[in-house]
Amino acid sequence: MVEGVRRGPRTAEHGGSSRDDILAAARGVFADTGFQGATIKAIADAAGVDSKLVHYYFGTKRDLFSTVIAEDFRTRNLLATVADGLAETPGQATHSPGTMYVRTVLTAIKDPHIGPTFLGLVRNLGVHEESRRIFLDFVTTEVIAPLAPKVRGETPELSISLVGSQLLGLIIARHVLAVPAIADADVDSLAARVGPTLDRYLGIVD
Amino acid sequence: MVEGVRRGPRTAEHGGSSRDDILAAARGVFADTGFQGATIKAIADAAGVDSKLVHYYFGTKRDLFSTVIAEDFRTRNLLATVADGLAETPGQATHSPGTMYVRTVLTAIKDPHIGPTFLGLVRNLGVHEESRRIFLDFVTTEVIAPLAPKVRGETPELSISLVGSQLLGLIIARHVLAVPAIADADVDSLAARVGPTLDRYLGIVD
Repeated sequence: MVEGVRRGPRTAEHGGSSRDDILAAARGVFADTGFQGATIKAIADAAGVDSKLVHYYFGTKRDLFSTVIAEDFRTRNLLATVADGLAETPGQATHSPGTMYVRTVLTAIKDPHIGPTFLGLVRNLGVHEESRRIFLDFVTTEVIAPLAPKVRGETPELSISLVGSQLLGLIIARHVLAVPAIADADVDSLAARVGPTLDRYLGIVD
Repeated sequence: MVEGVRRGPRTAEHGGSSRDDILAAARGVFADTGFQGATIKAIADAAGVDSKLVHYYFGTKRDLFSTVIAEDFRTRNLLATVADGLAETPGQATHSPGTMYVRTVLTAIKDPHIGPTFLGLVRNLGVHEESRRIFLDFVTTEVIAPLAPKVRGETPELSISLVGSQLLGLIIARHVLAVPAIADADVDSLAARVGPTLDRYLGIVD
């Protein structure tokens, strides 16, 4: 740490660019080495800050990783797509939010800034308890909790979880297993086939 | 190896019970230690035979593992359920083969003889290339190849692969991630929600 640098953010209001620099650096390090390979030190070095500043803003490595995933998810406005569809009359939806959602997710995974990080998490779900926990917390906090009050039916959490199960299975089939028919299909074809499944689970179509 | 035991099957016609004993032993060892932890020696010991006999009947450890998974899949007649549904007139299906199929798969996974072996394979898909290859070969050979000629539409392999993606995602959500709404649901509820998705991918319902 450079002598005389204060502990904490440089600008009192919102932390200014240090926080953003650290997030960008973290995204790169996680993409390159995965959650397990990444260290706070490597992220701090990449951001040109001291490790303590990383901890100050983001807590543990796990907290930082969760923040990277969640912030990317939020900036893509994924939930708004689905929430708009849920606001329409059942059976009268003028578009398929499920189709738009699948398209957005499959496109996001091709993004070199977030795809490798997210896929690294998915690959490790079955063998690394901390990855499993991060993923489950993310789904519960960022997806199920905000959407559940808007979903019709007696089991809104199950409905959203089933949407997640289809998306997760699709991502694994395409990017981990590489099942040829799914790996070779274009994003629009997959969105057209899988989107209505999501709509049906959410009660947007009958 | 006991002196004087012939290399090869004891009965010339079909190998008799040695083959079945080895398969049963393999199922137990794979269930206890997973594919990576299992050895041909441990399986041979559990079956009371020499390792050479295991290789004689089944080839490599990977071949044996694939056989265990595939034989269990076949004995449950899973494909017949779907093939019967495909034989009906579109939109006129009198039952939902998808619902029966989901119920059968989720029930099979609770079987202590096969569930742990299969889930061990699923857990390792993302981090162990040989597990990925076994799983993909299994899906291609045992599911896609026999069903594809019976599925309507221009992309039968994609249709079946999408069915697989939903089932895989459901199994991971329930047994690996343990998403509460899916882990706590009973098999019939899940089959009723997810079954129609499979029917739709396969063109059994409109």
